[in-house]
Amino acid sequence: MSSMWGNKVKISLFGESHGKGIGVVLDGLPAGIPIDLERVAAHMQRRSPGAQPGATHRKEADVPTVLSGIYRGKTTGTPLCATIENTDTHSDDYTSAAMKPRPGHADLTGLARYGGANDPRGGGHFSGRIMATLTFAGAVCMQILEQKGIQIRGHVFCIGDICDTPYDPLVLPGDVSDKPLPVLSDVQGEKMTALIEKARSEQDSVGGVVECIATGFPAGLGRPIFDNVESRLASILFGIPAVKGIEFGRGFAVAMATGAENNDSPRITDQGIRNETNHAGGIEGGISNGMPILLRCAFKPTPSVSREQDTVNLESMQNDTLVIKGRHDACIVPRAVPIVEAAMAVCLLDILEEG
Amino acid sequence: MSSMWGNKVKISLFGESHGKGIGVVLDGLPAGIPIDLERVAAHMQRRSPGAQPGATHRKEADVPTVLSGIYRGKTTGTPLCATIENTDTHSDDYTSAAMKPRPGHADLTGLARYGGANDPRGGGHFSGRIMATLTFAGAVCMQILEQKGIQIRGHVFCIGDICDTPYDPLVLPGDVSDKPLPVLSDVQGEKMTALIEKARSEQDSVGGVVECIATGFPAGLGRPIFDNVESRLASILFGIPAVKGIEFGRGFAVAMATGAENNDSPRITDQGIRNETNHAGGIEGGISNGMPILLRCAFKPTPSVSREQDTVNLESMQNDTLVIKGRHDACIVPRAVPIVEAAMAVCLLDILEEG
Amino acid sequence: MSSMWGNKVKISLFGESHGKGIGVVLDGLPAGIPIDLERVAAHMQRRSPGAQPGATHRKEADVPTVLSGIYRGKTTGTPLCATIENTDTHSDDYTSAAMKPRPGHADLTGLARYGGANDPRGGGHFSGRIMATLTFAGAVCMQILEQKGIQIRGHVFCIGDICDTPYDPLVLPGDVSDKPLPVLSDVQGEKMTALIEKARSEQDSVGGVVECIATGFPAGLGRPIFDNVESRLASILFGIPAVKGIEFGRGFAVAMATGAENNDSPRITDQGIRNETNHAGGIEGGISNGMPILLRCAFKPTPSVSREQDTVNLESMQNDTLVIKGRHDACIVPRAVPIVEAAMAVCLLDILEEG
Amino acid sequence: MSSMWGNKVKISLFGESHGKGIGVVLDGLPAGIPIDLERVAAHMQRRSPGAQPGATHRKEADVPTVLSGIYRGKTTGTPLCATIENTDTHSDDYTSAAMKPRPGHADLTGLARYGGANDPRGGGHFSGRIMATLTFAGAVCMQILEQKGIQIRGHVFCIGDICDTPYDPLVLPGDVSDKPLPVLSDVQGEKMTALIEKARSEQDSVGGVVECIATGFPAGLGRPIFDNVESRLASILFGIPAVKGIEFGRGFAVAMATGAENNDSPRITDQGIRNETNHAGGIEGGISNGMPILLRCAFKPTPSVSREQDTVNLESMQNDTLVIKGRHDACIVPRAVPIVEAAMAVCLLDILEEG
Repeated sequence: MSSMWGNKVKISLFGESHGKGIGVVLDGLPAGIPIDLERVAAHMQRRSPGAQPGATHRKEADVPTVLSGIYRGKTTGTPLCATIENTDTHSDDYTSAAMKPRPGHADLTGLARYGGANDPRGGGHFSGRIMATLTFAGAVCMQILEQKGIQIRGHVFCIGDICDTPYDPLVLPGDVSDKPLPVLSDVQGEKMTALIEKARSEQDSVGGVVECIATGFPAGLGRPIFDNVESRLASILFGIPAVKGIEFGRGFAVAMATGAENNDSPRITDQGIRNETNHAGGIEGGISNGMPILLRCAFKPTPSVSREQDTVNLESMQNDTLVIKGRHDACIVPRAVPIVEAAMAVCLLDILEEG
Repeated sequence: MSSMWGNKVKISLFGESHGKGIGVVLDGLPAGIPIDLERVAAHMQRRSPGAQPGATHRKEADVPTVLSGIYRGKTTGTPLCATIENTDTHSDDYTSAAMKPRPGHADLTGLARYGGANDPRGGGHFSGRIMATLTFAGAVCMQILEQKGIQIRGHVFCIGDICDTPYDPLVLPGDVSDKPLPVLSDVQGEKMTALIEKARSEQDSVGGVVECIATGFPAGLGRPIFDNVESRLASILFGIPAVKGIEFGRGFAVAMATGAENNDSPRITDQGIRNETNHAGGIEGGISNGMPILLRCAFKPTPSVSREQDTVNLESMQNDTLVIKGRHDACIVPRAVPIVEAAMAVCLLDILEEG
Repeated sequence: MSSMWGNKVKISLFGESHGKGIGVVLDGLPAGIPIDLERVAAHMQRRSPGAQPGATHRKEADVPTVLSGIYRGKTTGTPLCATIENTDTHSDDYTSAAMKPRPGHADLTGLARYGGANDPRGGGHFSGRIMATLTFAGAVCMQILEQKGIQIRGHVFCIGDICDTPYDPLVLPGDVSDKPLPVLSDVQGEKMTALIEKARSEQDSVGGVVECIATGFPAGLGRPIFDNVESRLASILFGIPAVKGIEFGRGFAVAMATGAENNDSPRITDQGIRNETNHAGGIEGGISNGMPILLRCAFKPTPSVSREQDTVNLESMQNDTLVIKGRHDACIVPRAVPIVEAAMAVCLLDILEEG
Repeated sequence: MSSMWGNKVKISLFGESHGKGIGVVLDGLPAGIPIDLERVAAHMQRRSPGAQPGATHRKEADVPTVLSGIYRGKTTGTPLCATIENTDTHSDDYTSAAMKPRPGHADLTGLARYGGANDPRGGGHFSGRIMATLTFAGAVCMQILEQKGIQIRGHVFCIGDICDTPYDPLVLPGDVSDKPLPVLSDVQGEKMTALIEKARSEQDSVGGVVECIATGFPAGLGRPIFDNVESRLASILFGIPAVKGIEFGRGFAVAMATGAENNDSPRITDQGIRNETNHAGGIEGGISNGMPILLRCAFKPTPSVSREQDTVNLESMQNDTLVIKGRHDACIVPRAVPIVEAAMAVCLLDILEEG
């Protein structure tokens, strides 16, 4: 495989950053589900560069055209394809990159993989822009999940060492999706914005962490061993460029916990058996336990920084330096929140439909 | 899918902890590769409970019988199946668990998934014992990888808050696989052992982190977007029970880095173009870059602790308490190192064979 | 899965007959292969309704737009997507069909599958028109195969009981792709045309058989048991609507053969070891043997006939009759030849790339 | 893939004819279904060489050992593995074959695929003996299907040019599974037996056709385009060695039909909407229509015949002759009936569970 993912609800992403267009096929959606394309567009808007702190000033219209799979406003159950035309592109910005690979990008690995045949303009198929198609797919899946009582929400958990209030792993958090920087604590959000602006002013960039939660996901889905919920979520989430770590529930903090304190104890409640705590992040033995599913993804700082960097010159085969021109994000994390939500939605719908 | 994994080199795990036997099929191995079954057994021995600090005193003989796929000492290229008989089992220890689900285990999620039909004894197919079969599979794959110049090594990186010397991401580390507690720093290892013994004496358990590295893996393998090297590794590694987080290269630390400092700069060297640093852990744009592949997995503390715990009684549907009897690991992390190495080997061989 | 196919070279078809557009994603193509889009268009032209005997007079422009995956005339190695706009459609012709299912069509099975949500116009995703996208995919793959010395050719083998000269299973046949009715024997072709015209004049339709051969395919590809060359070819070929039977080499005639006479004996020749005969159609034990791969597919007569037919009325839930209006093929077989070639090309390239 | 098959109910076959053992893993079975292992053994007995006309006198005990996946007589829902020890083997019979490939066997293609590393004894993994494992898997699936009202039956349809009474495509046929030669017409059966004995007496073998039907399979399963019921069935059925053709419903006879006569007209009946005829064999547009699913597979004559045959000598690289010793089937078709039923059962259960 490559740019396809899924067992039952399958997606196939295509497109290059500066080619004619990008898009996605969703195959295996349930039939007859109403889809509000305006809400899909609103979700995509959160990823498109705009008001988010640190966002590039590139314009990406991101207007999807649905070619198939929706009839009279509802899913047909047969493949849904949406395409997005590429418009605002400045290919010249990238000319030098072909000979001088950009540190932290896939220029050299793309060369190793495709022998120089892949489209180098703007990263081609490696471009973060391709995530617009995953965001579309996820926004569709989120609406289907909602109609089954499943909500997905995300926020910027950290930028650098500034952290937002963590999600309570037991309840659905407030909706902050309409903020340019989606955080629970506006005080921390202001500090994050300041940190991003500082990075930009220093011709640098900064990384962060996105936290995402899904409530209402039924118990008993997923499998032991390989097709467990964590494996599936991780396999789609690592498909988002710049993700370098994923953790569920308490995540890496479990390493410092003891069993007696880390175990979630089941208790009889009004809603049946529920765990008293949710250190496991809703997944035990690879299978959903009916508690909220909680995860965090670490994003590396945008590799495209404006300051001069060391690299090699592939023509002369000498060491060289490079100054990346063009408009780039000083921080991708705010724009990544709707992508993580989208990936989580595609995955949870796939697991749900798989049964 | 469920207990099957892989694109080209596929594995299928089977068995329940206290059933007749467990085993694995490896399908798609390259043909004609000599396999030293004694070395495979030695690798499995590192996972079997024994001298490792914190290990249970249960005996698991773990002697594999190869039914097919090896002829005159070499892989046939057709499916290799190995089975392991279950011998030393004390099923009575688990009788109460059926009615009183053990916190932190898959008792309730197994019930939700299988409606009570799955084998409850010792966790059935959810048991960590099933990892003996993955360890066998990985030990076979490691020998095949070695013959192609690829080495995989792991160590206990942390137990609780005690950490070993981290791997240098640029070079093959020393081999510590023959130590009961595989660490680089014996001083730190002694502290870890003390921490584990303390947990055991308090009828508790403790978690930790395993770090693993692969050197010699060629550049240009994997794909952009979904079938990238990180997604593939994460999808198999989260198949190991108790793993709650995975990170590559610098991992979650990238969130606190800036782009200028985090980017790995390519340089001209004697061995061709190599990155000066390896913050990316050998993977850029989802594709291997020829640098060592470095990852870390967080393991939660063993949920089976001897002290009394809160749970529910499924018969009376009342809150209740539970004391888990039997012999359990106070820390699974030392025994997990050869499993992580094994999973990494299966995955890298699959990616290599897929091309 | 559903409208996706492939292990390494994967295709994803989408679109409905009377929706906005149809298309295909090809994922996993080798990189850097020049593709002549004019030749692709010429191959697609053979499927588009036109001069073929028995073809509908509907116009299907079938002009593909390549959105991604080709850069400077060569495959990038990343997903190639092509879309085709739907233009000449007469949706009103199908209005009655929604309530009165057309015999021999998927109207009732589509209802059972999708609960009435699928696009009913012109068969929606079930329409033979979707085969334009498979034809595109195959035409691209045929060019890649050609550059590796592999040729694929097909002809109309039978219409009703009129049969063309069978292919000699040992050699590459002459190219008859530019004939409106691609047959080796023009005498038989004329009889076929007459039979088709007779069916049309009787408001009826007629079936037939397509025979296809691939030469130059290397020995040693495919697998024993399930991923054998026959299974793979059959699984994609039965994806073509109206195919009800597939056979390889001698096919069903082997039932009447004896072993001594049916076995192909290997002989030493100038080109190495070659079988003296090719009753096996190039595949033994599921694996290619280097001889030409030969297959035949049976196509049922077009179910859309103009004469009155029995059906049910879903509104009244009474027996009823139906007269299908609109322009339909009296025989689909001539237009099916380039589709069978295309499907065979996609499959053989997938097997070849898989190695 | 290779010897694995399935989307949701997956099977993984392993073993070589003269190795230590053979077996199968079934992954994804529904949980809690009672399985009668004696009935499974009885089904396997029909495949084991014995009283069937034309059967070899080799003894294949075929006693399966269930290692996992059944607990207290019911499926656990986790992987079920069964192994069969190899006992009665005469490896010396095959010694010459390594140097002189047997016509009609996979000796040369196995060499091309595995470079000589695959187990040559008795065909290794290519051996028809591996079908004992598929037969086991299918016998388990048949019991699960039965509990959902789905019956599968097969008979020998033809041996050479002698044909049994064809199945009525509208109803469940009588059960003839306890006959050594499972046919509806004993008169035709006697002629078939005579034909087989004649072939044996002439040191030859003879082919035939198996017909199989499934009743009670619900409407609306399968998909349009690639994952249709015909593709899925064909992909598993061509996994049976010696199958060279597959057809559904009327199969190749549709080529000689006209649309008006071939279309199945839906009618209102006591059991809801049913087709008046079943030329389509229960599948329209790739999706089940609730009518019986009917198919036929053509089996080539056993290639192991006792008379002298032409071949090559791989040592001298000269043309040579070969006399195959050992005990072989003069006709495999009677023993193939329970295998075809088994493959059909695995496939239909997979489709049913996939939903």
